[in-house]
Amino acid sequence: MHAQSIAAVRVRFQETDLMGIVHHASYLGYMEVGRVEWLRRRGIAYSAWAAAGLHLAVVEVGLRYLAPARFDDDLDVVTSLTEVRAATARFTYRIVRPIDGVACVEGFTRLARVDEGGKLRRFSPEMIEALGRPETRAGS
Amino acid sequence: MHAQSIAAVRVRFQETDLMGIVHHASYLGYMEVGRVEWLRRRGIAYSAWAAAGLHLAVVEVGLRYLAPARFDDDLDVVTSLTEVRAATARFTYRIVRPIDGVACVEGFTRLARVDEGGKLRRFSPEMIEALGRPETRAGS
Amino acid sequence: MHAQSIAAVRVRFQETDLMGIVHHASYLGYMEVGRVEWLRRRGIAYSAWAAAGLHLAVVEVGLRYLAPARFDDDLDVVTSLTEVRAATARFTYRIVRPIDGVACVEGFTRLARVDEGGKLRRFSPEMIEALGRPETRAGS
Amino acid sequence: MHAQSIAAVRVRFQETDLMGIVHHASYLGYMEVGRVEWLRRRGIAYSAWAAAGLHLAVVEVGLRYLAPARFDDDLDVVTSLTEVRAATARFTYRIVRPIDGVACVEGFTRLARVDEGGKLRRFSPEMIEALGRPETRAGS
Repeated sequence: MHAQSIAAVRVRFQETDLMGIVHHASYLGYMEVGRVEWLRRRGIAYSAWAAAGLHLAVVEVGLRYLAPARFDDDLDVVTSLTEVRAATARFTYRIVRPIDGVACVEGFTRLARVDEGGKLRRFSPEMIEALGRPETRAGS
Repeated sequence: MHAQSIAAVRVRFQETDLMGIVHHASYLGYMEVGRVEWLRRRGIAYSAWAAAGLHLAVVEVGLRYLAPARFDDDLDVVTSLTEVRAATARFTYRIVRPIDGVACVEGFTRLARVDEGGKLRRFSPEMIEALGRPETRAGS
Repeated sequence: MHAQSIAAVRVRFQETDLMGIVHHASYLGYMEVGRVEWLRRRGIAYSAWAAAGLHLAVVEVGLRYLAPARFDDDLDVVTSLTEVRAATARFTYRIVRPIDGVACVEGFTRLARVDEGGKLRRFSPEMIEALGRPETRAGS
Repeated sequence: MHAQSIAAVRVRFQETDLMGIVHHASYLGYMEVGRVEWLRRRGIAYSAWAAAGLHLAVVEVGLRYLAPARFDDDLDVVTSLTEVRAATARFTYRIVRPIDGVACVEGFTRLARVDEGGKLRRFSPEMIEALGRPETRAGS
């Protein structure tokens, strides 16, 4: 069973397009919110990692669009860490609309630890430990 | 050999993030530019299709990030149509920086023809014909 | 004393730029969130207005940037309706970071009621009444 | 007569919203393109300034929306430098659609020179000189 956290987002007007639905690129932003929240609930402030030069660069993404979301929809970004390797981690996401249970998007991102110069770096033991923690903080 | 067109984009300041590189979601916008240009060079104004309610909804995307692009970089979005089915089409993209030949991103999008109500619709014979045309117009 | 509501936003990674701070255009999105929330707390679902073709088009904006906000900052968007005319309304905003009380941005937007064709239309008596309501719903 | 340059942008699908028109925040991106192009045509690579820590932070903006632009519209961003002070400069913009001569947006941005730490700094004599140059390079 993978460690999972849920982040809530509400669709902004700006995130829609002239088809009247959420633009497909906007979901990458929601997945980013989900990932940052996943870390926060394990005591990891990604902003602190970033400030310390420990970036998690996105190296691969995949998304399948199952149903459109619309302006002002409340969405849940269900985020799971599904793999940790020496220098990369994979998160999967399921973006659902709780009011009707519809799944709008399924996707994943693979991230690599890079230093300030963009060089691939192994996760430190502290990072590995942090990624293995259970969810211990309430959402926010 | 797949039909291929090239669109040029220049990275905007707004498309970068605090890592100092192009944010990974920005490339979906570049791929959209590439796809619209691919159609334009075959005499297809996607704006006219959209105005007529013939939308091409993105139903799946995949991107691999090979090297970071940066503010003010000139990039070529090399777009190919690689598959046409009854109601869906698949485009693949290679985003390269011509000045040093570096490939920054490889990806694909799968699009489905949907009507105004979001219902899946088969391509019309006219659309199929249009998608099969060679590149006949200069870029812009 | 003007009718005022507060909406909370948290800065997303994507909303920063290579200066390491929130990109100046991102605040227009926050102000949009503030405005939609202002309406919601008076029982007005802007999504329902939009679906009914009652759009509030932005016709003028002004922003002064007082201090930078950063990734993962929690911000309060303090929104006030400061003027209602026959066909336009003016909202003012103050975006503050509660943790240190710093005001990051002050601004305003002027909106005009337009129909589906983009034509200016007077507010209906129902809209005027709605805009004059006190805040009656809890935030969300 | 103020020094003026013109940059061309084409509206991307992603820059529209569910009203079917360009979202009001997208124009700040176009103005940024216009400003960077204005500098480029005077031999100033803003990317080089930014890399050297010479940032021009946006401290104030104002925009009036005169007519909507739409997906795939070609727009000209007519940018003028209208004021240079010790540490700030003001650019004004007129965004027009050449095909019908319609002016979509008028606006201005005030920028301040700040160092890496966000501190206000006077323009150097070299910067003042550069800002005073005539347009000497072809657009791109």
